[in-house]
Amino acid sequence: MKIAITGAAGFIGQKLIKHFLDNPVIATPTGAQAITELRLFDVIAPPVPAPGNAAIAIDTRVGDITDLDALGQLIDGGVDAIIHLAAVVSSAAEADLDLGLRVNLEGTRAVLEACRTLPSPPLLLFASSVAVYGGDLPAVVRDDTALTPQSSYGAQKVMGEQLINDFSRRGIIDGRVLRLPTIAVRPGKPNAAASSFASSIIREPLQGDTAILPVPEDLSVYLLSPRGVVRNLVHALGISAEHFGGSRSLMLPGVTVTMAQMLAALERAGGPESRARVKTEPDPRIEAIVGSWPAVFETTKADSLGFTADRDMDAIVAAFVEDDRLINE
Amino acid sequence: MKIAITGAAGFIGQKLIKHFLDNPVIATPTGAQAITELRLFDVIAPPVPAPGNAAIAIDTRVGDITDLDALGQLIDGGVDAIIHLAAVVSSAAEADLDLGLRVNLEGTRAVLEACRTLPSPPLLLFASSVAVYGGDLPAVVRDDTALTPQSSYGAQKVMGEQLINDFSRRGIIDGRVLRLPTIAVRPGKPNAAASSFASSIIREPLQGDTAILPVPEDLSVYLLSPRGVVRNLVHALGISAEHFGGSRSLMLPGVTVTMAQMLAALERAGGPESRARVKTEPDPRIEAIVGSWPAVFETTKADSLGFTADRDMDAIVAAFVEDDRLINE
Repeated sequence: MKIAITGAAGFIGQKLIKHFLDNPVIATPTGAQAITELRLFDVIAPPVPAPGNAAIAIDTRVGDITDLDALGQLIDGGVDAIIHLAAVVSSAAEADLDLGLRVNLEGTRAVLEACRTLPSPPLLLFASSVAVYGGDLPAVVRDDTALTPQSSYGAQKVMGEQLINDFSRRGIIDGRVLRLPTIAVRPGKPNAAASSFASSIIREPLQGDTAILPVPEDLSVYLLSPRGVVRNLVHALGISAEHFGGSRSLMLPGVTVTMAQMLAALERAGGPESRARVKTEPDPRIEAIVGSWPAVFETTKADSLGFTADRDMDAIVAAFVEDDRLINE
Repeated sequence: MKIAITGAAGFIGQKLIKHFLDNPVIATPTGAQAITELRLFDVIAPPVPAPGNAAIAIDTRVGDITDLDALGQLIDGGVDAIIHLAAVVSSAAEADLDLGLRVNLEGTRAVLEACRTLPSPPLLLFASSVAVYGGDLPAVVRDDTALTPQSSYGAQKVMGEQLINDFSRRGIIDGRVLRLPTIAVRPGKPNAAASSFASSIIREPLQGDTAILPVPEDLSVYLLSPRGVVRNLVHALGISAEHFGGSRSLMLPGVTVTMAQMLAALERAGGPESRARVKTEPDPRIEAIVGSWPAVFETTKADSLGFTADRDMDAIVAAFVEDDRLINE
């Protein structure tokens, strides 16, 4: 089985590649298959996580996600599945409308155009986002809740979902769309996601650094660990199309927590000295974006298809400590 | 007030232009304004309905809706409002994916790009469609029902809605989106809309011709007359942005009728000889598209903003007889 991954240099891409290298046999709608080749695409050269796997050929490519020629070479007749992670994240898409439209809308369109040349519909997995929700929402968001995003990132993700669904309905691809909760705790450095702080306020204190909380302590978010994202992405590849019903999209299960509950979990894991490293500095721009995303969901469809959340906030912190914490020497 | 209209040669465009020529003072969010210029854009030269109006300058332009230069000239600093009607209709968009994406998605994007050059946000009115709904729907569709279209036309209209909403939220335009019910009775000839038959089965018999009913008699549709579309489009121009809440989109009120009820209204208006001119010839392709559109709505938002349906099916037939019936000599 040959899998192409866009956005392969991103942190979800990197964790997913690592997972495939360590676990090369995956469930697909046509049964278990061994991965024989990974094609990794990004605007910068995607690193290959050590130690690799001698049985899996790795082909790394650098290119622009709207470059039809490059995508045509990435997605040729030998590719069985495409995992489309490439995106401009929320704050960056809000700051630069053109960039967001180009990568998030035109880039997704370009990936789908490349799929039209294939002899049979490939599996296509698209990472959407909790940011598709917003505006006048019910207390609990359900699978049938209308999408009225309040950010350009969210609007662009809705458009990508529509493309995936329509191209699936037409039989060009066998698509599936996972709406990701806010991902925490991300490894590495803060990024341009408006929700970056949700990782920083756990990661930095546990690594001995300070962090800024830009939103009120009673603000709730809906979280999934990086480990949970990888688990659910891989799970999505194994579900037969007919189980998705009238839409290939679903919201992934997450954990609903307030900032106060996150800080309490931080203190349980790292002690009062860790908690003391988080300073509050309100940022209305961040609060406007993240505060527009709902935090309470009933994920009936995802639950029935076997997608799963982390156990609780403590499990999310523990996953970070086990998988990603860097200890400053 | 200067108004630009795309799709001006289409039948809704033509009726709207006629309305403006006859009623040149319209309500806007900043008060009543007299229309001084109409800029009419389409792929064919838009006719100007007689007798015209000496106080309104008419500027007709022929061009492609994705031509940024042409749109830049259409939408320049003097334009106060844009009514974006240009579209590839449902059956045509289903038959030709590229054409639908080009006109319905890229064309809408191009109109919005042209608006970015304006000194202040113009009113922008976008015609969406009942086709945005589909899939697993509740018995009654409400304002908060998720959009899971089952046609490429519907998917492309959802994407257009997202662009209008996001560009409005960003202050580039002051947009409003009306989701049109199936429009009947259209004047003229059958077109490539999958719902074309809903007009044909009334229009042709009342003009002495035969018509084909391609769907079962118990299939329900949600109808609005051309007169009703024009009334609601003009009404939308007068509503202040703040009344739209978290989304600029709304479903227009319509009348729910079965084919059997339509045929009964036909017989009341034209007698048994008219009814006898309709032959049943099932077309699964048409039924698949139109049958995916819901027919029972609770249009709370539209009702509260003063949008209105026709009284009943007899009123829809009467509007056709008064406004558009051609008598064969």
